[in-house]
Amino acid sequence: MALIVQKYGGTSVGDLERIRNVASRVKKNHEAGNEIVVVVSARSGVTNRLVADARSLHPNPNEREMDMLLAVGEQETIALMAIALHRLGVPAVSRTGGQAGIKTDFAHTRARIVKVTAGDIREQLSEGNVVIVAGFQGINQHNQITTFGRGGSDLSAIALASSLNADQCQICTDVDGVFTADPRIVSTARKISQISYDEMLELASLGSKVMQSRAVEFAKKFDVEFEVCSSFNNKPGTIVKKEAASMEEVVVRGAAVDKDQVKIVVSQVHDQPGTAAKVFQALADAEVNVDMIVQNIGHGGIANLTFSAPLEDAFRAEKAVGEILDLMGGGKVEGVDRIAKLSVVGVGMRTHSGVAAKLFTALAEAGINIQLISTSEIKISVAIDVDKADAALRLVHEAFELEKEETVL
Amino acid sequence: MALIVQKYGGTSVGDLERIRNVASRVKKNHEAGNEIVVVVSARSGVTNRLVADARSLHPNPNEREMDMLLAVGEQETIALMAIALHRLGVPAVSRTGGQAGIKTDFAHTRARIVKVTAGDIREQLSEGNVVIVAGFQGINQHNQITTFGRGGSDLSAIALASSLNADQCQICTDVDGVFTADPRIVSTARKISQISYDEMLELASLGSKVMQSRAVEFAKKFDVEFEVCSSFNNKPGTIVKKEAASMEEVVVRGAAVDKDQVKIVVSQVHDQPGTAAKVFQALADAEVNVDMIVQNIGHGGIANLTFSAPLEDAFRAEKAVGEILDLMGGGKVEGVDRIAKLSVVGVGMRTHSGVAAKLFTALAEAGINIQLISTSEIKISVAIDVDKADAALRLVHEAFELEKEETVL
Repeated sequence: MALIVQKYGGTSVGDLERIRNVASRVKKNHEAGNEIVVVVSARSGVTNRLVADARSLHPNPNEREMDMLLAVGEQETIALMAIALHRLGVPAVSRTGGQAGIKTDFAHTRARIVKVTAGDIREQLSEGNVVIVAGFQGINQHNQITTFGRGGSDLSAIALASSLNADQCQICTDVDGVFTADPRIVSTARKISQISYDEMLELASLGSKVMQSRAVEFAKKFDVEFEVCSSFNNKPGTIVKKEAASMEEVVVRGAAVDKDQVKIVVSQVHDQPGTAAKVFQALADAEVNVDMIVQNIGHGGIANLTFSAPLEDAFRAEKAVGEILDLMGGGKVEGVDRIAKLSVVGVGMRTHSGVAAKLFTALAEAGINIQLISTSEIKISVAIDVDKADAALRLVHEAFELEKEETVL
Repeated sequence: MALIVQKYGGTSVGDLERIRNVASRVKKNHEAGNEIVVVVSARSGVTNRLVADARSLHPNPNEREMDMLLAVGEQETIALMAIALHRLGVPAVSRTGGQAGIKTDFAHTRARIVKVTAGDIREQLSEGNVVIVAGFQGINQHNQITTFGRGGSDLSAIALASSLNADQCQICTDVDGVFTADPRIVSTARKISQISYDEMLELASLGSKVMQSRAVEFAKKFDVEFEVCSSFNNKPGTIVKKEAASMEEVVVRGAAVDKDQVKIVVSQVHDQPGTAAKVFQALADAEVNVDMIVQNIGHGGIANLTFSAPLEDAFRAEKAVGEILDLMGGGKVEGVDRIAKLSVVGVGMRTHSGVAAKLFTALAEAGINIQLISTSEIKISVAIDVDKADAALRLVHEAFELEKEETVL
């Protein structure tokens, strides 16, 4: 008998038929003698509908009231899931985030979990009930409903698994697991059987949108091993766990491209101490997520600064840089160009040299120009032409032989 | 400065435009310097949609889970109403039934209020906030969400008005108040300016469906004076209050017909002690709401029993009576006929004689046959032919001169 926490996202419970399907899966697990906690999201579409209602009443609705409003999405799902389980003869009770003892800070719409008591969940499990918990939401010290923002239900599941000391935590989603690259781009992409928290975090922060970083960070912090798997089949998914020494045998775990990036070139800035600091402080103040940075020093104390940022930050970035340059009395924004960011990720890079060389060589041989480079201990990213992004991903996938079965650790 | 509790039902908050309208009304009251608590229902249609979802998953969904599910309807409205008020520059906070300290017993889907602490509502009011409370719902001692059943939001408003010792309690609805008769039937029907709890209860239990009896009973028990008025205009409505001596000057306050009634005739029952008791016990066990009863004793120890019941109970009534007659070995259900129940209500009947005579005479002169009669201290009801119900109501309205302006007390 194991205690299993399973999370099902909005697509997995998107309509009544899918709720029935999830109930059937839960029934099988329950009949096998396991204790099951099911964390669910709002049915897909419900949250968007409520947000649209609020926005049509107010251009900038109050965050506390948005939490009150949006929390109903998950509350609907938990009740319907419990009712669907009853129909299959499975004893089940639903619990809101607050009832499940998910205590948060006061930051409405982006609350952080401060404690998880799990309420009466252990008692309900020991009485044989499946417990259905509303993801994405908690309660603050003033008894007010809070929500966690995007990917919040993953966070709820991992936090509950940690609090309950669960034997398994499964994040059930609409893909079969984490892949070596996006299978829609790379036909030979392969499901990864095991991946470290850090690798998962790097992939999450790239184009690979299986999970939000916050949930993975929480899992890493409290060492909650979890599996990313499909809601629609029973294939083994990808285990996300603490880094093991043996994981370093694989040099590159996966590769990804993010095509929603821009490169901003600032020319003619004075090459004085503090200039770059002022520019990047202005960008930070404007909440622009700067990623890769290159500075070229020209002649006569004049420099060029180039950096990349997400496409959605492009307008804010250009405005912020323009203003600070005016203030400093020098330099201009030369251009804002769409680029793609190609990255390879793997904890093996720490102990294996030559990864960068292999990556650059592969791209050079294909005539793909590298415009910017950034690296971390376990990741190398390059900015390239958007039009060549898919081809480059396929090339890199092949160069690092990611299609080959990894040794199961 | 007054503390006002206002309740708006599902029709009054049925879409975003109506929510905006209610917000404007509340703003005016707030700007006039009043402290306002607004109790709202689910937007019309929301509850039905959720019930349909639940029923499509389970023919008989669990009541605890139905409460969890249905409570979201009001939770949506309170958040949207607060957001609409913010848009008008009115400070407002929303509270669920539980947060408003509406404590109930454990009877899910038909919970009874045991205590109202009002949570932090007084504090919020003194800080200048309008407080929006989810009607229809509360919380039990185990921290589980409960709901009150039909008309539950009226009950929430009256209970909160009582707990907060409010200066005014307004039940804002889609009619202008309580009328001397249904204006769709009687063109001369007039809005009643004041009515006693008991008269309101009698009218509520008849065809006049302005409010459910439970809320009026609660108001009577705790002496909460309230006004039934329109959500859509500012005309004075009907004040419902404790009976004053001067109220008896009006003999008949109002008249109503209920066309959804049946008359069941049971013939050939043995006229022995206990026979009627057994029949009516069987009806009570089958949850049939028996209203008017007549027993005719025939020759040779054989009696006829006739009684009326709501149309929706007709099938259960016929079945229950049939079974008990079989058991007793005598009597048969002669027929189940649709009838209308015509009633006149007024506390003045206690001190004025001749009301029954005037009613029977008016009907007799119009050739309308009275099939059954029942009376209470403040009401006379007669069963008549359904086809003649509307005409009879107009006739009675005229006979008692209900169109004439009452003396304002």
